[in-house]
Amino acid sequence: MPKAWHLVRRPQGLPSGEDFALRPIDLPPLEPGMVRVRNLWLSVDPYMRGRMNDVKSYVPPFALDAPMEGGAVGEIVESRAEGFVPGDRVVHMAGWRDEAVLAAGAVNKLPELGVEPQAFLGNLGLTGGTAYFGLLDAAQAKQGDVVFVSAAAGAVGSAVVQIAKARGMIVIGSARGEDKCAFVRDLGADAAIDYSARPILKGLAAAVAEVGAKGIDVYFDNVGGDHLDAALALAARDARFAICGMIGGYNSSEPMALRYIMRVIAMRIRLQGFIYTDYAPRLGEFYRDMSSWIAAGQVQSRDTIFDGIEAMPDAFLGLFTGANTGKMLIRL
Amino acid sequence: MPKAWHLVRRPQGLPSGEDFALRPIDLPPLEPGMVRVRNLWLSVDPYMRGRMNDVKSYVPPFALDAPMEGGAVGEIVESRAEGFVPGDRVVHMAGWRDEAVLAAGAVNKLPELGVEPQAFLGNLGLTGGTAYFGLLDAAQAKQGDVVFVSAAAGAVGSAVVQIAKARGMIVIGSARGEDKCAFVRDLGADAAIDYSARPILKGLAAAVAEVGAKGIDVYFDNVGGDHLDAALALAARDARFAICGMIGGYNSSEPMALRYIMRVIAMRIRLQGFIYTDYAPRLGEFYRDMSSWIAAGQVQSRDTIFDGIEAMPDAFLGLFTGANTGKMLIRL
Repeated sequence: MPKAWHLVRRPQGLPSGEDFALRPIDLPPLEPGMVRVRNLWLSVDPYMRGRMNDVKSYVPPFALDAPMEGGAVGEIVESRAEGFVPGDRVVHMAGWRDEAVLAAGAVNKLPELGVEPQAFLGNLGLTGGTAYFGLLDAAQAKQGDVVFVSAAAGAVGSAVVQIAKARGMIVIGSARGEDKCAFVRDLGADAAIDYSARPILKGLAAAVAEVGAKGIDVYFDNVGGDHLDAALALAARDARFAICGMIGGYNSSEPMALRYIMRVIAMRIRLQGFIYTDYAPRLGEFYRDMSSWIAAGQVQSRDTIFDGIEAMPDAFLGLFTGANTGKMLIRL
Repeated sequence: MPKAWHLVRRPQGLPSGEDFALRPIDLPPLEPGMVRVRNLWLSVDPYMRGRMNDVKSYVPPFALDAPMEGGAVGEIVESRAEGFVPGDRVVHMAGWRDEAVLAAGAVNKLPELGVEPQAFLGNLGLTGGTAYFGLLDAAQAKQGDVVFVSAAAGAVGSAVVQIAKARGMIVIGSARGEDKCAFVRDLGADAAIDYSARPILKGLAAAVAEVGAKGIDVYFDNVGGDHLDAALALAARDARFAICGMIGGYNSSEPMALRYIMRVIAMRIRLQGFIYTDYAPRLGEFYRDMSSWIAAGQVQSRDTIFDGIEAMPDAFLGLFTGANTGKMLIRL
């Protein structure tokens, strides 16, 4: 019997396992124009935390006692839709479950780019695309810029580091702990800051000096809070900030305290919030650039994999405790 | 004997009269290429507070025990420079004093735009230009936008209100007290919020409803703090914030607490800091538009005038206590 994770309680602050329940689901009959998909890979991403609140945002909140949604890669096992045959690999949003019956319009066949299918949940999917458009469009980063990226060992952050290096930028990444900082350097970062070892403001000042710069030209924000404040403190003239996520604030109802926000004026800083899905019309250029970087070895993936659908809430909670290096995935 | 206001102590928090001293000054001899100017109007502006701190910013700090600088309009009384004759009216930065000897390159003859000379310290000077470029360039405001401007009864704010109306926008202004709110409405604002009567967040929500909108498209920030936070809370999709000033923070060393900063992401908000002087190459378009609005009565000035150089510190301090409606000027 197919199963799906349901949200059974809205988390207050940091979610816990008791907010979720794995329950059997009834799938609709396979009508003409529909496909049956068996999922192979499920994605957990920080933005899902927002959908667990009963607050209207850019995506509607998850309903209580209903299956959740999220990115997934699956294989067609039965098709009544033209153009789809069993064995086709597809990417879709009916994640948090093992099986789905979907309209053909809700699934996308994986482009033939010579990569493993789970890449379409990572470097060729939401997280890689978020890094690509955030860095190159929202922040207008260009060759020679000094780029600071927070949570640089995470899925989005590790893509930002590698894209920035592929485009000739100087990169500073922050991560928690020496192992992750070593990973960030392995990705090509010119400097890595272990923010568990000292305050991020001091770490960033030292890293800026280490790369021979006077400030940062670009900040790619995955964290908010003290990281955003440190970036404001050390921003160079005309710095551009791509505001992608603020994982430090997702589980908090406290206001964010920014000591250096007034530098926005003196340094003519621009902060730009953005959402990956707004760039759907430009996916072609992303696939072209990213697949060529992957083929050339300039962008590599390191996934943190949990096995089995039962492990999914743990994988999700791990996003907030730093359990992942690179992309967090569930393999079914 | 010529006199100038000196900074004799760096203010901690809100400045006081004891931070300043009016002292006689020695003027240099009038060498060839120089002019002697007797000042007629002196300007006080909130940005001057920043120069009183010993912190490098976009303008260097005032030196202690030295005359301060600031915008001034004066009359040439003696000239050894080609192109200047006694009686010429000029605008320059040797304010905070009654008389100056300056290189001709440091003064600008007032363009013949049919306005009173002190307008070049206000709507045709720093404050009007700040409003113009901030609204139309930094915030990219356009016809039909719902524009929220804080400190709307101040020099910059009152110019923003009128420029926005001249360009067909819907305008909400905030000010302290009913008199100032009436002034903001007189300027053409569609709604005015008295933030001394209720929290700005509630006031802004009510004003947005009053103008029949769902949110604000543009925020022109003169205040920071709770005003910026309210603007974040009520920003519409793709809203653009021109960050001009944060007068609420100039005298404070506390971090700014922002409860709604995370909406930057969901609503794709852009914050852009800017400085008027960056737009020097585009002053022509500003003079053209602003003088035509002034001629048509679409932009009017209301000045708060203090008489005599002795009153200058009081005028300056009044900027932070809300003593001014419109532009604060000192008449000599």
